[in-house]
Amino acid sequence: MTFRTIDELRMACLVLPEGNDTSATAAAARQSILTKPLGSLGRLEEIAIWLARWQGRAIPRLDRVHVLVFAGSHGVTAQGVSAFPAEVTAQMVQNFARGGAAINQLARQTGAKLVVKSLEIEKPTADFTQAPAMTADELLEAVNAGINSVQDEADLVCLGEMGIGNTTAAAALAAALFGGTARDWVGRGTGVDDAGFSRKVEVVDRALAHHAKALADPLEALRRVGGRELAAMFGAALASRKRRIPLMLDGFVCTAAAAVLARLAQGGLAHAMTGHVSAEAGHRKLVDCLGQRPLLDLGMRLGEASGACLAVDILRGAIACHSGMATFTEAGIAEG
Amino acid sequence: MTFRTIDELRMACLVLPEGNDTSATAAAARQSILTKPLGSLGRLEEIAIWLARWQGRAIPRLDRVHVLVFAGSHGVTAQGVSAFPAEVTAQMVQNFARGGAAINQLARQTGAKLVVKSLEIEKPTADFTQAPAMTADELLEAVNAGINSVQDEADLVCLGEMGIGNTTAAAALAAALFGGTARDWVGRGTGVDDAGFSRKVEVVDRALAHHAKALADPLEALRRVGGRELAAMFGAALASRKRRIPLMLDGFVCTAAAAVLARLAQGGLAHAMTGHVSAEAGHRKLVDCLGQRPLLDLGMRLGEASGACLAVDILRGAIACHSGMATFTEAGIAEG
Repeated sequence: MTFRTIDELRMACLVLPEGNDTSATAAAARQSILTKPLGSLGRLEEIAIWLARWQGRAIPRLDRVHVLVFAGSHGVTAQGVSAFPAEVTAQMVQNFARGGAAINQLARQTGAKLVVKSLEIEKPTADFTQAPAMTADELLEAVNAGINSVQDEADLVCLGEMGIGNTTAAAALAAALFGGTARDWVGRGTGVDDAGFSRKVEVVDRALAHHAKALADPLEALRRVGGRELAAMFGAALASRKRRIPLMLDGFVCTAAAAVLARLAQGGLAHAMTGHVSAEAGHRKLVDCLGQRPLLDLGMRLGEASGACLAVDILRGAIACHSGMATFTEAGIAEG
Repeated sequence: MTFRTIDELRMACLVLPEGNDTSATAAAARQSILTKPLGSLGRLEEIAIWLARWQGRAIPRLDRVHVLVFAGSHGVTAQGVSAFPAEVTAQMVQNFARGGAAINQLARQTGAKLVVKSLEIEKPTADFTQAPAMTADELLEAVNAGINSVQDEADLVCLGEMGIGNTTAAAALAAALFGGTARDWVGRGTGVDDAGFSRKVEVVDRALAHHAKALADPLEALRRVGGRELAAMFGAALASRKRRIPLMLDGFVCTAAAAVLARLAQGGLAHAMTGHVSAEAGHRKLVDCLGQRPLLDLGMRLGEASGACLAVDILRGAIACHSGMATFTEAGIAEG
């Protein structure tokens, strides 16, 4: 699946497959006969049914979990919006390659395959306070890179990112998609001080004003105030839906990128859960806008798919119970 | 460690060891040089430092996680307080033995050792609306059973329980320890209907009135309105503290039992975290009383140490990052 024009891409978002009702119904029926009071496993029951629906299997599996981390560089860093210098993006990509980052440890811990895609990080997007971040071709190239990172064999895809400056892009994109001003969406990212935070707010408001007339279209908003790794995550979210692969979203930047799909198509993120609600200010509001209920709330704000990957263990627990527990009949136990 | 009198036991609770400041300080120092913005791993950083403190190791480990599940029978079930018949306690103990319960799957999933201790389940405690649930000897026997279930080699102890009727006991115990009436603490347990819920409230209020003059003493409250599995969990919480083993609490019944230690000694649960906040009504209030912040909130209300065990994977993620990540210097990355 590769798109040559934005219109082709837009059209593809309008015909999204639904999950498998038969598998979901079978999974729900199984949950009702396992040796526990009905509902007592809470969201673990919901997870088992959701995975069944999107995998099309009454007993879902997580043998092949793919963690996709996309990295991009942002021209808007010239405005002094981050606590870290722009070159840290390339340094962190090296750190991923050498196995030294948090996501390397978390992916190994849960037995997931980690794939890091660096998207022309030597070539930052344009500073979106002055011009669209990407040309149409650049947008499509990044979206296609995301799409082609999703493999049919995956039982679950976890999405994440790295890119100094990208919480600024995500705040602008969230405002474009859901309204509000910079104050509603800007947070401290990797930890800007008060002066940096004020600059960041001013920069996002300036970008929103500059592109005001073009932001009603979600794809155009993504092109103008997004970034390559956001475009790639949007593409991966679309591809996983097309392939009926359940998707685990990460923090603020990842969710903002995936939200483009929800704005293009009603129910566009039905195949997605959010692993963790970030401490980054705008994330809680964003998941509320999307009707997502994050599985974890541990004060993390790292990105890299770290929150998505940590939530995989919760899914593993849900499947272990769903597939391994005895039924009331098998155990000879009186039902309540 | 075995106690022959309640006075001996009470005295032991007054001399609790502290954690290891040196290890905690070393762990915190390490967190500050790993390749991530400071604080961006949120509670994973706190977890690493807490485990370091109580294991006395700057790099903690979770090679030997012991899940202890205690089962007991309750005379108060004669009052019709549960959605399930009393014989389900014995049936579930069989289910644990055969590997069919939720906790069997969750313990296997996270690589923990599961030990189920059945505490004279053929001999229910007395109906505590009419008499103390246990004699002093029965209390001590159950506490000692809990104490002796904790093994020195454990890197972490997870506590849980099974016992039809025990959310009624836990509600009465919580009210005895922290005040309030039945309405403040009673929930629906395994799922009683409205009539059952009203009976349960009435039963707890009647028990609180019957024992009113004796409930100011936490150990006496445990004896009068607790149960064998609650006494054993209290004993295990004490023993893990004495041995400086970090402790993971489970839901409402487990936390009520462990709360006895917090009421006997200031900071008595400093070595404990709570794995999950239960959907059982009183648990959120109880963890607030204890200053505990549960790691997970997934709507579970099963007991069996299921919430404690599920949280072990979060701890594993925290340790994976703490021990495996590169430092800024190692990775040649500019600090923010």
